[in-house]
Amino acid sequence: MKSICGVEGVRAAGLKEGKYGLALVAASGTAAAVFTGNLVKAAPIILMEERVARGELDGIIVNSGSANAYTGERGMRDAAAMAEIGAASLGTEPERVGVASTGVIGRYLDLDLIRRQAGEVAPRLRHEYAAEVEVARAIMTTDLTEKHALVQGPGFSVGGVCKGSGMIAPNMGTMIALLYTDAEVPAGELREALRAATRRTFNQVVVDGDTSTNDVAFLTATGEAGRVPATSLAAALEECTRSLAIQIARDGEGATKLIEVVVRGARTEDGAAAVARTVVGSPLLKTAVYGADPNWGRVLAAAGRAGVAFDPGRVSLFIGAGARRTPLVEGGTIVVDLARAKEAMRGREVRFELDLGEGKEEATAWGCDLTEKYVEINGRYTT
Amino acid sequence: MKSICGVEGVRAAGLKEGKYGLALVAASGTAAAVFTGNLVKAAPIILMEERVARGELDGIIVNSGSANAYTGERGMRDAAAMAEIGAASLGTEPERVGVASTGVIGRYLDLDLIRRQAGEVAPRLRHEYAAEVEVARAIMTTDLTEKHALVQGPGFSVGGVCKGSGMIAPNMGTMIALLYTDAEVPAGELREALRAATRRTFNQVVVDGDTSTNDVAFLTATGEAGRVPATSLAAALEECTRSLAIQIARDGEGATKLIEVVVRGARTEDGAAAVARTVVGSPLLKTAVYGADPNWGRVLAAAGRAGVAFDPGRVSLFIGAGARRTPLVEGGTIVVDLARAKEAMRGREVRFELDLGEGKEEATAWGCDLTEKYVEINGRYTT
Repeated sequence: MKSICGVEGVRAAGLKEGKYGLALVAASGTAAAVFTGNLVKAAPIILMEERVARGELDGIIVNSGSANAYTGERGMRDAAAMAEIGAASLGTEPERVGVASTGVIGRYLDLDLIRRQAGEVAPRLRHEYAAEVEVARAIMTTDLTEKHALVQGPGFSVGGVCKGSGMIAPNMGTMIALLYTDAEVPAGELREALRAATRRTFNQVVVDGDTSTNDVAFLTATGEAGRVPATSLAAALEECTRSLAIQIARDGEGATKLIEVVVRGARTEDGAAAVARTVVGSPLLKTAVYGADPNWGRVLAAAGRAGVAFDPGRVSLFIGAGARRTPLVEGGTIVVDLARAKEAMRGREVRFELDLGEGKEEATAWGCDLTEKYVEINGRYTT
Repeated sequence: MKSICGVEGVRAAGLKEGKYGLALVAASGTAAAVFTGNLVKAAPIILMEERVARGELDGIIVNSGSANAYTGERGMRDAAAMAEIGAASLGTEPERVGVASTGVIGRYLDLDLIRRQAGEVAPRLRHEYAAEVEVARAIMTTDLTEKHALVQGPGFSVGGVCKGSGMIAPNMGTMIALLYTDAEVPAGELREALRAATRRTFNQVVVDGDTSTNDVAFLTATGEAGRVPATSLAAALEECTRSLAIQIARDGEGATKLIEVVVRGARTEDGAAAVARTVVGSPLLKTAVYGADPNWGRVLAAAGRAGVAFDPGRVSLFIGAGARRTPLVEGGTIVVDLARAKEAMRGREVRFELDLGEGKEEATAWGCDLTEKYVEINGRYTT
């Protein structure tokens, strides 16, 4: 198993027909979710903010192709109808079914299609590798790769699938992530663990700075592995969501390279996180990475507009990892070897380390390069 | 005349040799400037923040090719030396010379080159059309077009040149703008007028969301036309800076289209301005405009992450101007005619009007589409 079917108590199935996919996951337990911070929220987000607060789910239904966002009253009725379709498929109440949608904004759901697809998918719910792959594929839109993660904790597992490749920016619970653990976790603890993991991982991914209207991450604890220490759960969950976050960054629309920005020496973790996000999201840095152009001044220019106070004269900046790690600036002095810096920008992963020299806190953010392909994909998405 | 030589008391000259340009402007009077809000400020910015506070200048020297940013103590000495070169060329004190630099970050100035270029330029200072063109060209980097503006007030003129096409985002005094008026204006009033005009025009241009380390706008009042009402000056100055701001947006790196976003019905002007900037800067909207793809949901998704409260159910959205103006959403209801919307996206200018339905304030922001060419330009800028 690679993700959700590695967790006891989870059954899955899905299908994809052109742009239109449907995923169904059956898993009963305590549940928590985090949602987009966008003011314009999709109908299923508004519905779930109310329903997930009860802390229990029996399953989740997700469609791709239409976001059911900015669809007003009809959108709310459609989201509720989708919960009913899910409930009928899973043999439970609509209030115990998670609903998520992804796709074009401002289009109504095709409920007939969703009803037919659910009818085909429901009899195939099962606990096996092919089933988790179906789910990961069913929820993809412009994604090129399926995104799975599975982490083994001591005596329990945490697994998740997610989708996301454009309209990705902080302040969210990523595009859509379905996370499961077989640990037994009270709903309150589950919520806290999900918030903490989201803040450090999904919220640190920037593809294009656009925050979606439909971001949601669901976490369900089936309980089949019994109680586990809160710290073990938190650690395993964060490892799982970090893996998924990095997969989103790597599969950013049009991306050829993963960018990792580590900010150290900050006075606060939030400050480090803000600087890391601003740098990794800078279009000028993203294009420089694409061109393997060691125009490192763009890292400092981006850091300087992050809204975090630091002394530019005390900063150190490194590029690359392992044997290729090379300094660009040390304690405010330029020490760059441009040939070595250029060398560190080749390859599929480019890493910057920025030490602000102010304190002991650190944070990491992930993103991707900006290429002609991003423009091509997004200039032609609806039509 | 098209810009600064339309203002009495201004003499100009400049030259450009490959990437390296030098502009010199002689104009004595009260002076004000606004600077980048980036924490990482270029050496000439740091120098000018101190010197311009005195409120008087005799001239300005600007080089292109090196930004003299992140160059530490040596950068500060180099900026001061550049003021001395300017002072010798203009026959005044270094403290009365404005200095600005634009180009690659993290490279030292070539003072020998600047000294030689100043020696060639100084004897050619003159009050004529060819001279203002030389200045506009000398300060260009990735700009494709010269940027001039000249506004006639009642009995006085306001003229300016500027440069800027990448690393353009709010919180600045644009890349570099040299503004002149022959009105007689006390330094304090000049500063206020410049701040107000900057806030409404230059700060409302977004090309890529990256705020430069070197942004600066200088405004000098030569006084030759005598005193004028403060409101006349403010109006003429804002018209002048708006024209330059739109020219920057239109010449955004790789741009094929100008995007104008008007936000009405906001509770505050700042709120309207923030929403307009967020929408015009959205990479997803920018690519949609490039592809003439009426994916208008991206306007609402961007508005929703601007940090400004509004009720999505009361919003109206229009695309196009004049006879082509067509509604997409009215009072929260989707009314879009996709064929007409697509038609309104053809042409070199695309205009969105978003009415939040909350109040009476409004603001406008300008930007450009995001194209493959932006990626190409910025993947290969230093090398």
